[in-house]
Amino acid sequence: MQPAARKEPVIDTITSVQEMRLHAQRIRASGASIAFVPTMGFFHEGHLSLMRLGRELADHVVVSIFVNPTQFAAGEDFEAYPRNPVRDSELARKAQVDALFLPDVKELYPAGFESYVRLDNLSDRMCGRSRPVHFTGVATIVTKLFNIVRPTVAIFGQKDYQQWIIIKRMARDLNMDIDVVGAPTVREPDGLAMSSRNCYLSREQRIRARCLYQALTGAQQSVAAGTRDADRILHEAVAAIGRHGDVSIDYMVLCDPDTLEEVSEIERPVLMALAVKVGKTRLIDNMLLTPPANSKHQEDPQ
Amino acid sequence: MQPAARKEPVIDTITSVQEMRLHAQRIRASGASIAFVPTMGFFHEGHLSLMRLGRELADHVVVSIFVNPTQFAAGEDFEAYPRNPVRDSELARKAQVDALFLPDVKELYPAGFESYVRLDNLSDRMCGRSRPVHFTGVATIVTKLFNIVRPTVAIFGQKDYQQWIIIKRMARDLNMDIDVVGAPTVREPDGLAMSSRNCYLSREQRIRARCLYQALTGAQQSVAAGTRDADRILHEAVAAIGRHGDVSIDYMVLCDPDTLEEVSEIERPVLMALAVKVGKTRLIDNMLLTPPANSKHQEDPQ
Repeated sequence: MQPAARKEPVIDTITSVQEMRLHAQRIRASGASIAFVPTMGFFHEGHLSLMRLGRELADHVVVSIFVNPTQFAAGEDFEAYPRNPVRDSELARKAQVDALFLPDVKELYPAGFESYVRLDNLSDRMCGRSRPVHFTGVATIVTKLFNIVRPTVAIFGQKDYQQWIIIKRMARDLNMDIDVVGAPTVREPDGLAMSSRNCYLSREQRIRARCLYQALTGAQQSVAAGTRDADRILHEAVAAIGRHGDVSIDYMVLCDPDTLEEVSEIERPVLMALAVKVGKTRLIDNMLLTPPANSKHQEDPQ
Repeated sequence: MQPAARKEPVIDTITSVQEMRLHAQRIRASGASIAFVPTMGFFHEGHLSLMRLGRELADHVVVSIFVNPTQFAAGEDFEAYPRNPVRDSELARKAQVDALFLPDVKELYPAGFESYVRLDNLSDRMCGRSRPVHFTGVATIVTKLFNIVRPTVAIFGQKDYQQWIIIKRMARDLNMDIDVVGAPTVREPDGLAMSSRNCYLSREQRIRARCLYQALTGAQQSVAAGTRDADRILHEAVAAIGRHGDVSIDYMVLCDPDTLEEVSEIERPVLMALAVKVGKTRLIDNMLLTPPANSKHQEDPQ
């Protein structure tokens, strides 16, 4: 309310589970709603957009930074994952985040930890094929953080579309009473989806990495022009990406945006999602492809 | 506060998830604590003892009755499980329970349900060996009910000892902030642990079913007398049960009361747990066996 407070916001930095729980309890007891943005840190504009959305949707914004070991398999980039908590804290403060939760791995995963949340179907598709333990780790840490913070609303980036769908499904299945909101992907000027992992790319790889967005927008144009055959869309996209050296496709699918089940014909808006390795860096992206309003079945009466 | 209310307590019967959630929110907002007793109904004195403990531990007692399909495997007794909600409601009312939650299976498990809570180690031991999906179903439904009721304390019977340990572990692992209390087993005059499944027993089987308690008390006496070899205890108990016809042992273990890891030598209090089939009815029971205070290692200085 005070102009001075707006200019120089303060941010509570909390590291213990009990302190975070008490902080959130105090906020709720005051009648305020809580927006929660769970992250792995190394903030970019995508993260900041989630925090700003949190400011719009609730009275109090809590952001967590935790590079969660259980969602990385052996050989993945857990150790290498970029970290910069000091810069992150300053960016969160400027984004008017109220509390930053930086829990300790030993407190969240003490000796003897053995309880996991697992989804039967959604976790095995798309990224789940090449990362079989990934979404169990994600669902488990998000459940833990939800139970500690108990927010009104939680915000996830749609760049990680499958993660968002899984958390929405989990919250509904397990009666979590939290509104799980997906926020639009934020992109670099050339279309590359913002990701903390983009920092792994060399200058040349960074240029090649445009191919994900190019494949998606190419497919979008093709669908908008009336192409309905999913295989044709995918072949065109594979060919477009195949032109680049040092680039390999992990998966590329056209699927139902809610169930993630693959579709063969595009009759409704479908999600196109892909994972591509540029050098050793695995990048993901996705886009909703919407067929033209007049592209109905010929059997249709009008 | 009014004597009349003490004599004729009223009980709120709630069937919808949203109504239960709102009821619990109102109770919490009033500053009252909530004790929660999740059950599958068909109440006996064991259930009533949990409700009475709830009355002691919190201001408001919520009991749920839900025969949970996901904790029964195909071929188990989900359909046959005894039900009597009218009698249960009257017994709960007399036990001064404040709210009875009778959710609908279709609301708790809607089409597309696919999120489960699973424990890696505790679920696979003992009852988990012959009932591999059982504890995943238990952990999942308890998570759901906890998220709906959000109690201060939840009460489980120690007759289902493994279930109690699993829920305690799960609540701790997933940061649920609920005190998970185990209440002592209530027994019939001849020692048989009370269970809704005892109604399956014929008159002859009911007499044979004493063998569980006899095996446990026999082992307890043997340990109290200084026997420290777990195999010897188990052999004696197997022999005692083997004398009865129409009775087969599913498992019998001596284990650490916290980790449920089997022990070979009894140096501390250990849990003896067993499952026995009497006819087609599977019964479980357990007891803590405490060695005499002076039965220390000979190497010990005193």
